[in-house]
Amino acid sequence: MSTTFEICRDRFERLRAHKAFELTVITIIVVSALLIGAKTYEETNRFQQWLLVMDVAVTVFFLVEILIRMAAEKRLRDFFRKGWNIFDFLIVTASLIPLDDSEMVLLARLLRIFRVLRLVSMIPELRMLMAALVKSIPRMGYVALLMFIIFYIYAAIGSFLFAEVDEFLWANISTAMLTLFRVATFEDWTDVMYATQELYAWSWIYYLTFIFLTAFIFLNMMIGIVLDVMQKESAQMEIESGEGEAAELHGLRHDVRQLSAQLDRMEAALGDRQRGARVDRRVED
Amino acid sequence: MSTTFEICRDRFERLRAHKAFELTVITIIVVSALLIGAKTYEETNRFQQWLLVMDVAVTVFFLVEILIRMAAEKRLRDFFRKGWNIFDFLIVTASLIPLDDSEMVLLARLLRIFRVLRLVSMIPELRMLMAALVKSIPRMGYVALLMFIIFYIYAAIGSFLFAEVDEFLWANISTAMLTLFRVATFEDWTDVMYATQELYAWSWIYYLTFIFLTAFIFLNMMIGIVLDVMQKESAQMEIESGEGEAAELHGLRHDVRQLSAQLDRMEAALGDRQRGARVDRRVED
Amino acid sequence: MSTTFEICRDRFERLRAHKAFELTVITIIVVSALLIGAKTYEETNRFQQWLLVMDVAVTVFFLVEILIRMAAEKRLRDFFRKGWNIFDFLIVTASLIPLDDSEMVLLARLLRIFRVLRLVSMIPELRMLMAALVKSIPRMGYVALLMFIIFYIYAAIGSFLFAEVDEFLWANISTAMLTLFRVATFEDWTDVMYATQELYAWSWIYYLTFIFLTAFIFLNMMIGIVLDVMQKESAQMEIESGEGEAAELHGLRHDVRQLSAQLDRMEAALGDRQRGARVDRRVED
Amino acid sequence: MSTTFEICRDRFERLRAHKAFELTVITIIVVSALLIGAKTYEETNRFQQWLLVMDVAVTVFFLVEILIRMAAEKRLRDFFRKGWNIFDFLIVTASLIPLDDSEMVLLARLLRIFRVLRLVSMIPELRMLMAALVKSIPRMGYVALLMFIIFYIYAAIGSFLFAEVDEFLWANISTAMLTLFRVATFEDWTDVMYATQELYAWSWIYYLTFIFLTAFIFLNMMIGIVLDVMQKESAQMEIESGEGEAAELHGLRHDVRQLSAQLDRMEAALGDRQRGARVDRRVED
Repeated sequence: MSTTFEICRDRFERLRAHKAFELTVITIIVVSALLIGAKTYEETNRFQQWLLVMDVAVTVFFLVEILIRMAAEKRLRDFFRKGWNIFDFLIVTASLIPLDDSEMVLLARLLRIFRVLRLVSMIPELRMLMAALVKSIPRMGYVALLMFIIFYIYAAIGSFLFAEVDEFLWANISTAMLTLFRVATFEDWTDVMYATQELYAWSWIYYLTFIFLTAFIFLNMMIGIVLDVMQKESAQMEIESGEGEAAELHGLRHDVRQLSAQLDRMEAALGDRQRGARVDRRVED
Repeated sequence: MSTTFEICRDRFERLRAHKAFELTVITIIVVSALLIGAKTYEETNRFQQWLLVMDVAVTVFFLVEILIRMAAEKRLRDFFRKGWNIFDFLIVTASLIPLDDSEMVLLARLLRIFRVLRLVSMIPELRMLMAALVKSIPRMGYVALLMFIIFYIYAAIGSFLFAEVDEFLWANISTAMLTLFRVATFEDWTDVMYATQELYAWSWIYYLTFIFLTAFIFLNMMIGIVLDVMQKESAQMEIESGEGEAAELHGLRHDVRQLSAQLDRMEAALGDRQRGARVDRRVED
Repeated sequence: MSTTFEICRDRFERLRAHKAFELTVITIIVVSALLIGAKTYEETNRFQQWLLVMDVAVTVFFLVEILIRMAAEKRLRDFFRKGWNIFDFLIVTASLIPLDDSEMVLLARLLRIFRVLRLVSMIPELRMLMAALVKSIPRMGYVALLMFIIFYIYAAIGSFLFAEVDEFLWANISTAMLTLFRVATFEDWTDVMYATQELYAWSWIYYLTFIFLTAFIFLNMMIGIVLDVMQKESAQMEIESGEGEAAELHGLRHDVRQLSAQLDRMEAALGDRQRGARVDRRVED
Repeated sequence: MSTTFEICRDRFERLRAHKAFELTVITIIVVSALLIGAKTYEETNRFQQWLLVMDVAVTVFFLVEILIRMAAEKRLRDFFRKGWNIFDFLIVTASLIPLDDSEMVLLARLLRIFRVLRLVSMIPELRMLMAALVKSIPRMGYVALLMFIIFYIYAAIGSFLFAEVDEFLWANISTAMLTLFRVATFEDWTDVMYATQELYAWSWIYYLTFIFLTAFIFLNMMIGIVLDVMQKESAQMEIESGEGEAAELHGLRHDVRQLSAQLDRMEAALGDRQRGARVDRRVED
């Protein structure tokens, strides 16, 4: 029975990895998602009924596929050790919740949207993209902390000075931080500034220094990430392919060391010959 | 007759590739386009009449050029196999539609603007730029898909929670996605947020996480494209020119291998000599 | 006694550098900062009282740590020679100012926020980030000067031409520069343009050239910084690690020079042998 | 007398290149420029009178410097052959125009601002920055042309479809292009879209495709410039300094070729020796 499972699993894996099948499933998921969005599910024409059937088919396919993958593990616990397995399990489970359109329509529709996440776990390129995003989170932690400190100090000064100008924008530090985020996105920031400038004519210094600081740090953050991604990417590629300049240089150095070893042998042989020749000459003399 | 065609084709090609001719045609097309834009065609002064004549001359030139190129092919089908030929054919055909200024002026003007596209098929640098844009479309597909998923989920949550706040912005998922695109471009996004904050004070979390996610993914997309373009560009350039560090390294490795072969010969000769010498000594002894 | 100090200092340094301790202190500082921001200090529940105690503990810890570091120096003057020591001293001193919540609450709250800066001097990654920011300031000086010149000239023209249109925006050069900064951030810049276009229909040239110039220069500035950071970063990394292509190339060249020296010895020996052999032959003749 | 001129010119050149002098002149120019901007020239306190004297001194210094440089040339025509000389001459001449504050104050003030440009011709770093900007203009030409074509076509469609919606924004192609530039900078673009959506519900496709196209092309333009600047910059630096990997590789290849020549000599010598030895042996036989 184990072999039947393995054959089944292999077949499902192969079917899932097939480009044409993948493209069909992506199209079904995206189009049905768009149709929910366009609120056109009510008027059921032929095309939509056919799509509904396909949507159910996709749901069933993924249910069967995950059940086979779960059965393939020796213990069920092992299945839940991989992050992507848990992710797949949650999405498949969520897509199984019955959608009773008569009653709580909105909540049902909200649940149905999480079906779109099946795309992420299905397409390998999206899995890699997601993994790259998750990996870069710790790197961004310290920059985010520095940004928080700058926002916090400016927000404290802002709520201290400008609270009487506009209670809505500068009431306390938390609202002031939100207002500063608005300023950092350049969203009607001059309205905020002009209001405070009436009381404090020199408040433009506050806004300009804040904008320069945040833009400056964001720039450095971007560069840092670009650099890091570049180096890791290229290093990994050269290790995998054995090509590239680094690999070529390494091979070259190996060649030169072999040359050196050969010369050592020759020098030794020559010295040997010379000593022999010198002995000859002494004998001849 | 075939040779006459070939001479004609060569002459047209050479004329078309000539820098001075190219610059003249670009100037005529751009200036006549600008004049249509400025709605000043009505007052016909001398300069504009002269320009009109030149514009007709350019149209005729391109018509003759494409007819010769079509006649040069053995079968007409072969001509329509290349993408750029179809592109050229469509533009030349569109620029031949007579512009009757008395009646449907606006549509005539709309058709005339597609003449500007002649610039793209004419200037080699623009053709390359367009080809690069077309090439990078599949690479951007997966990032666009991930962006779509994020927009879709946020739009579903937004339309579920905020529909009662503002029917115009959050009525259904499709309008909510448009509203979120507006938020992603920072276009009066605080107005959207302040409205929803009156009912849901914590809705700023919704907007901030959305902005961070989209900006973050966009950043990664940019880096990915930059990296890819860089590597392909530099690899192709070094292959074409035979210069650069990669080519230099390759040459160096070749030199070192020749050295090694030379040393092998010398070592063999030396060993030969030494054996000969040893034979000598034994003979002498 | 000096050794007791040293042991104490070492212990504090080790405790401070410990990841778990660092994380705890960061959490305490950030959460207490957030609580000040949320204005929820008034309602003292158990969690907040516990946090207040922890906050005082952190303050005392840093006070003791800096006192030990000061006592460890032979002369107090030496302590204040390092920039980071002065930074630490100011922050610790500022966090010791008693916070009398009854009277000048706002100023007290303003002083308390500078405690967040303890994060910068505490976390090595943030110290490095700050050092990198300080280092890149002179590099940005000349670009800032060029930007100032462009802003100044456009502001002068703007205040000369548009002062009668809108006194608030174009009254003098300084307000015009602020208005131009607003235009550079795309903040309601069309409102500014549409107003001036009523008097000067061609004023869109003024705005478009300004936007292109500033965006263009900013782009070049960004590239310049990216390039500079990249080169310095990679150069320093290769020097520190002794790895990388530059180090590999250097080592390779050293190897080749050793080969050359070895060949010189061999050639000399061979010449010696040959001369010897020639002498032999002459003797034999 | 020619030598007196040369000594004078050398002294002025050296004084001008002196860092302390340069910094003083920059400070005087910038501060006096800021004072004009702040409209505080009227209230003449001591500091400003002193600054006015310094400003005149700087003007006289540059006048004398340029006169000496002009006199140093054999023919006056040669002086005006260099771009920077013409630039300097125009600025010095413009700064000599008398500023009669009583009458046409505004025009006088406008002329005075061009004195700030003296900074550009004075500071070598700014000259290089300006030269880099001028150099990159042709590279940007084709991208600008492509952008123009996209703007033009969208503007034509826009003015054809949306003219009846809002005469102010879409009256003709030129105003439509300005409106599209506003959309490209995300400046209240939703207001523009919402207005047209009332008549054409699907007009969001028009705006979204336009935003994606322009943002996409701008991205490619940025990457192209970054790549080009990087390659040219690094190539020039390595040529100038004789350092870097390219120079190291070049030197390495030279070393290896010398090794090869040395081996050729040795092989020839060895062959010579061997032939000699063989002759010996034959003779001995």
